[in-house]
Amino acid sequence: MADVLSGNAVIGQSGGPTAVINQSLVGVIQGLVSGLVASDHVGHVYGMKHGVSGLTDTHNGGLVDLAGLSTETLEQIARAPAAALGSTRHKPDEAYCERILEGCRQHNIRYFFYIGGNDSADTCRIVSEEAAAAGYEMRCFHVPKTIDNDLRENDHTPGFPSAARFVTLAFMGDSLDNASLGGIKINVIMGRHAGFLTAAAALARGKSRESGEAYRYDAAHLIYVPEVPFSTERFLRDVDQVYSRIGRCQIAVSEGICDEAGNPMGPQLAASLEHDAHGNVQLSGTGALGDELAELVKKELTPEGGKAPRVRADTFGYLQRCWPEPSLIDAAEARAVGHYAAALAAEGGSDASIVIRREDSGAYRSAVGHVELSKVARHTRHMPPELLGGESDVSLAFYDYCEPLIGEVPVLGRL
Amino acid sequence: MADVLSGNAVIGQSGGPTAVINQSLVGVIQGLVSGLVASDHVGHVYGMKHGVSGLTDTHNGGLVDLAGLSTETLEQIARAPAAALGSTRHKPDEAYCERILEGCRQHNIRYFFYIGGNDSADTCRIVSEEAAAAGYEMRCFHVPKTIDNDLRENDHTPGFPSAARFVTLAFMGDSLDNASLGGIKINVIMGRHAGFLTAAAALARGKSRESGEAYRYDAAHLIYVPEVPFSTERFLRDVDQVYSRIGRCQIAVSEGICDEAGNPMGPQLAASLEHDAHGNVQLSGTGALGDELAELVKKELTPEGGKAPRVRADTFGYLQRCWPEPSLIDAAEARAVGHYAAALAAEGGSDASIVIRREDSGAYRSAVGHVELSKVARHTRHMPPELLGGESDVSLAFYDYCEPLIGEVPVLGRL
Repeated sequence: MADVLSGNAVIGQSGGPTAVINQSLVGVIQGLVSGLVASDHVGHVYGMKHGVSGLTDTHNGGLVDLAGLSTETLEQIARAPAAALGSTRHKPDEAYCERILEGCRQHNIRYFFYIGGNDSADTCRIVSEEAAAAGYEMRCFHVPKTIDNDLRENDHTPGFPSAARFVTLAFMGDSLDNASLGGIKINVIMGRHAGFLTAAAALARGKSRESGEAYRYDAAHLIYVPEVPFSTERFLRDVDQVYSRIGRCQIAVSEGICDEAGNPMGPQLAASLEHDAHGNVQLSGTGALGDELAELVKKELTPEGGKAPRVRADTFGYLQRCWPEPSLIDAAEARAVGHYAAALAAEGGSDASIVIRREDSGAYRSAVGHVELSKVARHTRHMPPELLGGESDVSLAFYDYCEPLIGEVPVLGRL
Repeated sequence: MADVLSGNAVIGQSGGPTAVINQSLVGVIQGLVSGLVASDHVGHVYGMKHGVSGLTDTHNGGLVDLAGLSTETLEQIARAPAAALGSTRHKPDEAYCERILEGCRQHNIRYFFYIGGNDSADTCRIVSEEAAAAGYEMRCFHVPKTIDNDLRENDHTPGFPSAARFVTLAFMGDSLDNASLGGIKINVIMGRHAGFLTAAAALARGKSRESGEAYRYDAAHLIYVPEVPFSTERFLRDVDQVYSRIGRCQIAVSEGICDEAGNPMGPQLAASLEHDAHGNVQLSGTGALGDELAELVKKELTPEGGKAPRVRADTFGYLQRCWPEPSLIDAAEARAVGHYAAALAAEGGSDASIVIRREDSGAYRSAVGHVELSKVARHTRHMPPELLGGESDVSLAFYDYCEPLIGEVPVLGRL
């Protein structure tokens, strides 16, 4: 067993929050309290307010003591969506890292836990390397979260199952709504580079995995993910085909769809893009893409001299990541990865990124493990080809992959 | 007891669907089967596909037989959001009514049930009057539904509590998300003329009604309903005040807000309005109002030479009315009004609109009753002044009014 450092611990949350990111926070806290705090290696368990800002910017950030919270309080926090410590989109460069290290030295931090996506894993990696270069002994652990499900080395990431559950339930209800009044309905789903969340719209079809039954429902009819270059011509042809046949069409579109050349769709959208510190553009918090696609469909699919089809667009927006009724499996796994990180620290484990893996056989079971930070940092995972089915659908393998994660959904009857 | 007619019955659903409109459908069916069908007064229970189109337009509509469905099927249909029979936005004029009557005669319809809002109550009233004028004996019953909660004579209408529950849960999660990253968040809520649903954002504050505790959370900070004329100057001042104080601001805006002169907000929006057969404009299915308000805030609240605030807008859209996890009280009451309508018919009751009333004292209890069709038809109920609190908030009385309807919501912890 490696040596166990003595000092204090700090935990932060970064990037876009999820419905279960606080489960991971509470997992780390509880793991530390029952491990390193109980064994007197760690005196204080600090929370960084608004991510690494908490160590560098006492005006906007600052540290809070997390070790003294009651179990009842911790459980209420765990149940709450969004980052209880506050989040940040800062991406530390070298100068920023020096200030983080300075903060760590000031507070005798020897354990650094950062809950976030691949940008946060990279922050973790940079801090880790800077600490090593400076000869400051500190262990850095990245705890995964992202609704985009785009972290390498993970079967899936905490936050994704709850967001996928929201998307599935939304498409189930919205499909029946669309069937009530007919017409074309476009729903825009979060997902900057990876289409996993948009693909979850397919689960609204209610295919029974166990019985191998045919789909109970037909919608979503068309699914467009960032992994497949978007062509407006093909899109219009697809929509026209479904609409002509059944008088309605429900469509799932990822906010991250791009044309062949990699340009984001929507000319007005492209002009109004905001960039954050990571170079990410603002794709959420606006209905522009949905509205532009709806206008396009209305314009192009109105028969000459005829009546325009009823076309509506909804952008699901932030509710996907903060809906307060999560997937129960997601909540449990998010707690588990936090707990694992703290246990790894207590064992004297080296700097690592925590990962979720799926057991191979039979009913769904997951296991927690860890890999080197560099294996997760910066990289983006995309939907593998075997989960896609043609240019506007998922494969049957996607159901096997995603259905166990979202938990039970109601069976809805139709006439 | 009045005379009981013999013949067939027909049921239809009209207008924007809700999460529990099929509970009412199943309530009518079960009430008819155990009453008028069991006593041999009614032979067939027909469903009109897409509202009155089902009687007038065999191409798009038609009739389906509803009496032979199994209890299991009925329960699955009851649980499904959106109109299982399909809906319509047709508003029958005299000529249309003659065709409806013609359809009723053809099928020997003696009981006409129409589930919908004030437009549907009016359709019911016109059909009733035309039938009487033509000397055709038929009983017409309006069964209430609308997420807007804008029917007179009702304490509240089936569909509203489930939509209000969705809005409350959404604001709870979204408020924590807004607190994580800061900035200004605008959420646009359904509600053409009445602000009840937008006002439900206040319940996210988690005021405990029983204990009289102060609010657990602060957001939504600002609430704008159609009953209060909207002023962009006041809006910007309100937002600036909250944002300057706490670095964030969560806002609920009704899609139906209008200026002093009664013009809908948003110049681009106003230009793109679609009208349906009732003269209603299309307010939903576009993110334009939210996006325009966000642009306005960003433009006006950016300090000279300074950084623009982070501003995001979500339009909750159709999910508000079709989310498949309803308020349980709403589901039960929606079933009850349908059942009541069928029971009233079996007693030989005259044409009526079914209503929900609240018992006066103690814990929440509702009762079902009925009034003349003309008391509900066409009229729109607005939020009464006593439920409003100033120009951008609700009153304490609103909590007493709305909290019992949405059912239990999770308690979410904050640091």
